[in-house]
Amino acid sequence: MTSYKAPLRDMRFVLHELLHAPDLLAQLPGYEDASGELLDQVLEEAARFCENELHPLNRVGDEEGCSWEEGEVRTPTGFKEAYRKYVQAGWPSLGGDPQYGGQGLPYVLGNNVSEMLDSANMAWAMYPGLSQGAYRSIHSHASEDLKQTYLPKLLSGEWTGTMCLTEPHAGTDLGLLRTRARELDDGSYAVTGTKIFISAGEHDFAENIVHLVLARIEGAPQGVKGISLFIVPKFLVKEDGSLGERNTVMCGSIEHKMGIKGSATAVLNFDDARGYLVGQPGKGLAHMFTMMNGARLGTALQGLGVAEASYQNALAYARDRLQMRAPVRARPDESADPIIVHPDVRRMLLTMKAYNEGARALSRWLALQLDVEHAHPDAGVRADAADLVALLTPVAKAFMTDNGTLAANLGMQVLGGHGYIREWGMEQFVRDARIAQIYEGTNGIQALDLLGRKVLGDGGQKLQKFGALIQAFLQEHEGNGRLKEFTEPLGATLQQVRDTTMLVGGRAMQNPDEANGAAVDYLRLLGHLTYAYLWARMASASLDKEGDFYTAKLHTARFYFQKLLPETRSLVATIKAGSASLTAMPEELFAL
Amino acid sequence: MTSYKAPLRDMRFVLHELLHAPDLLAQLPGYEDASGELLDQVLEEAARFCENELHPLNRVGDEEGCSWEEGEVRTPTGFKEAYRKYVQAGWPSLGGDPQYGGQGLPYVLGNNVSEMLDSANMAWAMYPGLSQGAYRSIHSHASEDLKQTYLPKLLSGEWTGTMCLTEPHAGTDLGLLRTRARELDDGSYAVTGTKIFISAGEHDFAENIVHLVLARIEGAPQGVKGISLFIVPKFLVKEDGSLGERNTVMCGSIEHKMGIKGSATAVLNFDDARGYLVGQPGKGLAHMFTMMNGARLGTALQGLGVAEASYQNALAYARDRLQMRAPVRARPDESADPIIVHPDVRRMLLTMKAYNEGARALSRWLALQLDVEHAHPDAGVRADAADLVALLTPVAKAFMTDNGTLAANLGMQVLGGHGYIREWGMEQFVRDARIAQIYEGTNGIQALDLLGRKVLGDGGQKLQKFGALIQAFLQEHEGNGRLKEFTEPLGATLQQVRDTTMLVGGRAMQNPDEANGAAVDYLRLLGHLTYAYLWARMASASLDKEGDFYTAKLHTARFYFQKLLPETRSLVATIKAGSASLTAMPEELFAL
Repeated sequence: MTSYKAPLRDMRFVLHELLHAPDLLAQLPGYEDASGELLDQVLEEAARFCENELHPLNRVGDEEGCSWEEGEVRTPTGFKEAYRKYVQAGWPSLGGDPQYGGQGLPYVLGNNVSEMLDSANMAWAMYPGLSQGAYRSIHSHASEDLKQTYLPKLLSGEWTGTMCLTEPHAGTDLGLLRTRARELDDGSYAVTGTKIFISAGEHDFAENIVHLVLARIEGAPQGVKGISLFIVPKFLVKEDGSLGERNTVMCGSIEHKMGIKGSATAVLNFDDARGYLVGQPGKGLAHMFTMMNGARLGTALQGLGVAEASYQNALAYARDRLQMRAPVRARPDESADPIIVHPDVRRMLLTMKAYNEGARALSRWLALQLDVEHAHPDAGVRADAADLVALLTPVAKAFMTDNGTLAANLGMQVLGGHGYIREWGMEQFVRDARIAQIYEGTNGIQALDLLGRKVLGDGGQKLQKFGALIQAFLQEHEGNGRLKEFTEPLGATLQQVRDTTMLVGGRAMQNPDEANGAAVDYLRLLGHLTYAYLWARMASASLDKEGDFYTAKLHTARFYFQKLLPETRSLVATIKAGSASLTAMPEELFAL
Repeated sequence: MTSYKAPLRDMRFVLHELLHAPDLLAQLPGYEDASGELLDQVLEEAARFCENELHPLNRVGDEEGCSWEEGEVRTPTGFKEAYRKYVQAGWPSLGGDPQYGGQGLPYVLGNNVSEMLDSANMAWAMYPGLSQGAYRSIHSHASEDLKQTYLPKLLSGEWTGTMCLTEPHAGTDLGLLRTRARELDDGSYAVTGTKIFISAGEHDFAENIVHLVLARIEGAPQGVKGISLFIVPKFLVKEDGSLGERNTVMCGSIEHKMGIKGSATAVLNFDDARGYLVGQPGKGLAHMFTMMNGARLGTALQGLGVAEASYQNALAYARDRLQMRAPVRARPDESADPIIVHPDVRRMLLTMKAYNEGARALSRWLALQLDVEHAHPDAGVRADAADLVALLTPVAKAFMTDNGTLAANLGMQVLGGHGYIREWGMEQFVRDARIAQIYEGTNGIQALDLLGRKVLGDGGQKLQKFGALIQAFLQEHEGNGRLKEFTEPLGATLQQVRDTTMLVGGRAMQNPDEANGAAVDYLRLLGHLTYAYLWARMASASLDKEGDFYTAKLHTARFYFQKLLPETRSLVATIKAGSASLTAMPEELFAL
């Protein structure tokens, strides 16, 4: 059985000492009250809930899974009760608009809380996570009437939400979707079609479920331009806000999955279900994707969350398990040493630790930039923040979830054979983490978005802004010999990224396959540049401070630069090699 | 649901065109009859069995798993019947000594068959696989009496075998084991203790199970030198060979695992169970490890087997699934193109293909070297073969199983969300493949064995022999401009390995942690040298031949050299960085 303790010390380090979040938030109208003390208090509350209520249900959820019977879904033992407590404590409203009952706290705070929820119980955290996505789409685009009807209930947690995009033949390619909407006399719509892979699509947590559904209004053009966004509630809502009749959207079945088994993944059949248009016809995809950066960061956090839980339990095992003797004995009285003395076990643990702490810094930094993007009074500052968020969100989503799976696998490996046995809980982390590389846009799609749209799409302007930030940091610390072991490889990596971008950009103008074939390696290269930048900043923030925490930070930074960052050498080489070896072989020859 | 077709064309290419196995076998006394036609016939028979009987049970095994009740284990539906057919067809005796009822066919043939079994149904293949290990230990070390009693039944498949090493507190570190053996008046022993993780430790396939058990004779010294090897049968065997009373070894439970759920992993309780000493007292570990190279190659094959099955199914999906449009349309009449047109999907498929075919070549080459080691009339040739096998077996075990998991994860990724759904079968491959990185010595332990014992342990002599082989190949093809794209990077990689070995060797003389910390990266570097050598040879064997198969081979070779081999650059860099960043941080700081 695993345990989990929220990494509050590191969360505070990132918020206060690395990002100086309270100072920045104080400049953002609406967030002036988000003081350092308040942030810390909320984190401690969240930690208690995650450690004591949610984590003990993590294995229960995996063992029992969800069950489906005649359209109804039963969640695992304890899940519903935990949700009741979560609602009672007011967590669903944390980041919500005060106009609709929200607490109006910054996104960067919620980002910490989400990490803890994901560490404690990723499957359970899917339910409130999806509600947040639905909340944001409605908040940004729906009419005031719809907002008044749905937002307060989503923020109170009485109702939950979903995002209904995928259809059996339309996953990545939403332009193919066939669900259709027929306008009715009263201006509402009758929605018909089948949606699959709908997380939290049916469950027993709440009295109503608010489905956000992409569909094509009859007569609308083919492709993405014909897609509109609709609210389709499970139960219709009466004028007075109370629940009316059952809408004709039914859960046809739930999927049996590799992991996150406590999360119900529904097939939803819409059969002339009553729906309400959100925003403008034909703008459905754009409206849904308003919240895409937030949703992608949410998925990125799942990579970190699960990897952090895996790290903590792998570390406990490595300090406890006696096996083999070390050259210098750590426990001379025992017949063997704890396996943490062995360099290769340390390599696995440090890889997890360095990636996790890098991921924590990246997600908090981007979350804070999202707050700046939404609330800063200066339009230029907002635009810069938006550019950084746009550039680095696909990086965070793919790099953090790829590293999350990598870390969960290392955590399992630390336990040897016991890692493969279900009761130890380490293999569940591997199975749970794995989905985050796939959904919310596969990591391959993130890479295409990054290189094609975000980097080459604007002639490298966003990338240059990020590069300027790094350059400024390097100049600021130019004379600091104690930081050189970090700043020197950071500068070299920045140069590698610039050279590689020029190279790929030039080739892509001749042949778009050159960008598509390089994208995944390029994203990983940029991921390392981002972590190198943040690790250098973390080292800088730790250098002149006393205490074990800062010593550990510097050790981990050193490990990152010496043992993980050099992956860039291979990435540069494979990018340079070009895409001909990917595209040359005729399709039929793959089968030989 | 997945399907599987044995890759007979590639198997024949490796046996005949790459390794010229029949010519070499003709020089080995005892294997003169293993003609090319005979080998091919056996492969076709094995393919039929694996495709038609075993693979359809693969998902059944995963869904049902094994069940335990009062010491008895029930295997999944169809497993027992498939074993009956396997026995009826004579497969268990394929490589066995004719003196005890074996067919005396070479190991390299069985290696092909094992790959197919693993592809078709890795969990099922565990049962006959363990029997082979037990067979070999007994055959090499037991008295003629014991051989006469046990070997014919193991070769007929009427009985199966196990290897009982691990105890709850003793996994990697067998020196800690506590199971004890008390000598009885008749020269047999009473064995008492608990063994865990015993594959095929209890089941319903066969009337008897022959446990090979490591235990400490009372009064024997601590550590590995006090360990002896025993046969402990589930049912005692009477003088006439018929079964007698039930021995006091009981299956206390079976493990619930991440994968290979159809394979029963038993806890075995020995309670004064009657046992028979195999070989010499105190030599148990050495006797058990006689068959270690064979067993490790068997585990290596699991990495390949599962990855091959995953590849075939990922490829079928990629050619079938229409999603997004390519710059150059492959299906102008459809609304989207099959995803195999997208460079990143091709990258995933080619990575699987290149690693799988490299693994096939490596395992067949080493298997043939094992045959040479055992049967060649010339002692010098035998010694050279033994050195190659010793050097490259840990490489094969770790590199093939790491790449197996990597490939299975890529295969799952090709299917996107469907990859995560159980009914598609792709996630089972990921879960099944994962154990092969752990058991039979974790891949970290393989790396220590390689660098510490096999490379530095003999001053690099074995490595030099391998290097000389590569050098000879390079010289042979020096003038061949068409091979240059392969031979040039192969030569560079050889030089990298030599430099890196010198560097690490020098450092390790000062500090053993330097070898331990570099070992995993070093193994992967040597893995790439091995694949680069074999891919260059495969390219050379394909260059002047006509036909799509050879064209595909050359395309895949090119992909390997351009897109996978460059990983060596990172490995060299991380090895050069040394181990200080692994060892410097005090244990307590890992928790901060």
